[in-house]
Amino acid sequence: MIRPNSTIDAIPAGEPFVGPERIMRERGLKTMLRLGANESAFGPSPQAIAAMTAELPRLSWYGDPDSYELRSAIAARWNCNRDEILVTSGIDELLGLVVRCFLAVGESVVATAGTYPTFAYHAIGYGGRVESVAYREDGCIDLDALATAAQRCDAAICYLANPDNPSGSFADADAIARLRSALPARTLLLLDEAYAEFADARALPAPRPLPGIVRARTFSKLYGLAGARIGYGVAPQALLAPMLKVRLQYGVNRNAQIGALAALGDAVFARDVLERTARGRAEYAALGAALGLPTLDSTTNFVCFDCSSRERADEILEALLQRGVWTRKPGMAPLDRCVRVTVGNESDRERFASELRAIRARVTV
Amino acid sequence: MIRPNSTIDAIPAGEPFVGPERIMRERGLKTMLRLGANESAFGPSPQAIAAMTAELPRLSWYGDPDSYELRSAIAARWNCNRDEILVTSGIDELLGLVVRCFLAVGESVVATAGTYPTFAYHAIGYGGRVESVAYREDGCIDLDALATAAQRCDAAICYLANPDNPSGSFADADAIARLRSALPARTLLLLDEAYAEFADARALPAPRPLPGIVRARTFSKLYGLAGARIGYGVAPQALLAPMLKVRLQYGVNRNAQIGALAALGDAVFARDVLERTARGRAEYAALGAALGLPTLDSTTNFVCFDCSSRERADEILEALLQRGVWTRKPGMAPLDRCVRVTVGNESDRERFASELRAIRARVTV
Repeated sequence: MIRPNSTIDAIPAGEPFVGPERIMRERGLKTMLRLGANESAFGPSPQAIAAMTAELPRLSWYGDPDSYELRSAIAARWNCNRDEILVTSGIDELLGLVVRCFLAVGESVVATAGTYPTFAYHAIGYGGRVESVAYREDGCIDLDALATAAQRCDAAICYLANPDNPSGSFADADAIARLRSALPARTLLLLDEAYAEFADARALPAPRPLPGIVRARTFSKLYGLAGARIGYGVAPQALLAPMLKVRLQYGVNRNAQIGALAALGDAVFARDVLERTARGRAEYAALGAALGLPTLDSTTNFVCFDCSSRERADEILEALLQRGVWTRKPGMAPLDRCVRVTVGNESDRERFASELRAIRARVTV
Repeated sequence: MIRPNSTIDAIPAGEPFVGPERIMRERGLKTMLRLGANESAFGPSPQAIAAMTAELPRLSWYGDPDSYELRSAIAARWNCNRDEILVTSGIDELLGLVVRCFLAVGESVVATAGTYPTFAYHAIGYGGRVESVAYREDGCIDLDALATAAQRCDAAICYLANPDNPSGSFADADAIARLRSALPARTLLLLDEAYAEFADARALPAPRPLPGIVRARTFSKLYGLAGARIGYGVAPQALLAPMLKVRLQYGVNRNAQIGALAALGDAVFARDVLERTARGRAEYAALGAALGLPTLDSTTNFVCFDCSSRERADEILEALLQRGVWTRKPGMAPLDRCVRVTVGNESDRERFASELRAIRARVTV
């Protein structure tokens, strides 16, 4: 007799991701090398760990619902006002809030087929229609096609991950500005910059709120706080105000706020992670070249190995998993011929290289 | 040109709570005794702190989106299946999910005017209408009036905090069963049991999923993990399934999962908190009686002091705050003549008693 509403009823059951823990349970694995979710292999900054450790006894207190100190520190880096920053429980919560506020049931959103799936999950979850655009043949995002699709369906929101996940490719500030100009004026551009810290800062859009754009950032990747669930949006205040009316006021973990603030202050650690990640990407590129599995250029903490066909990629993914190495692969052509591998730390990469070499010796690509 | 949708646009700006940190900022306070949010003064269990400390270096990993281990442990206590448990980022997230899934825009929900406000915040946020029922003159929830109102407006959801916040009063299992029977069959009964562990377990509804009811529990209160943001719903699987289609899959902090699991296993600590809280309630009752500010019966970790009028209650609340003691007060009659005070630890209570005595010497009630 109790029924969900018609929007929810119409949605198929499904989830954007299967977590690694379920894979381990289903396969009976006791350990698994996690190179599938682009989690930082370098952990949180020691300063963040120290700050969080010290505050664990006060985890009985709610976090500040205004995230005042953290927003102040972020605003200082973005040369903007505190009210142009919204702290959320990771980028995922922010994506949901943007969809909830700016999409009406039955309206359309535009995204690339096979990009980070949680945006489309939210769009469907709020009764929207997802107009998908294919990757270009070179595996990069087709910005022109996104704009054309947005015009065609009068999109409420256009989603772009930049740098993109899973391709690792990157559109520069000029390209983003052109995309914004080419979109309908009513279309909100949702720029998911989860991996932006790994890209060349000079090529990125300038660090400030941009008209018509919500920029999403996270402490999950560079700062190694994925499990803490903390990220933020940067946008003109008028775009954040609707979200403030309905957001989960106490959604952010107190220790996540403390860890994020400390992480922001630890520039030495962040620089070290960036350098080690760049070395890891170069190592992966050399490995892929040596094994005939060329890598795609990446400005992130992961790399796609081109296995030349979907079947080969599936085979290599499964073979890695059977050897206890968990990776993921893009779901849509042309990237579905790739296996996407997180840049682990030095020992992770040694293990991965050794397993991939062993598999490569058996698999003919 | 970019506009929120009509549902969001129609919602007034507002927030259910002002956090204590903002009060401190606005008043320029360096310290403040937090007795306003029913946060546990006894902190998290030492076992929970130890488990979380050990796992901080792995906070770069996402938490298990299935919360498998924690749900298993909870299901064992509730004599139910794992799929009758849904772990969320605190009860607040669960309240929002229930509203999102079971309320259609324009439909009504029923709740008591002046009870925990976050349910109504979500109901308004999802385009619902809130039909409010007054507290009885004795400060208890009027269950008959809730049922009558739900019948009248064919409510999608009826919200009941049990034990209630802010009154501290309690409806037993028979009363809950009668309420469920008196509600329309289409009405979901949302039972917010945030403080249930402080009540007599024999008087509560049996620990199992109940037809037509979503029971909400939290690790914020007894377990001292408010800042961790972790709670759960217990319900027949058919009521949880719609929420699984749209929930934030990675919404829960990994260390919150770890802390909650450890907390569940520390029965000695929980018993100690219960005993010390009961002693604190008795102390508050004696203090109120001595000062002519009689307390309401409470089965929670907070107590309402009856100041005999709204004006006196406002005055005492403000006087306490000027002395650095933060409390809150109910917003609606007849409870708005009360100040609601968290049962702190022994030294908190000593400080509070001393300040209240000093204020009482000046204020004529």
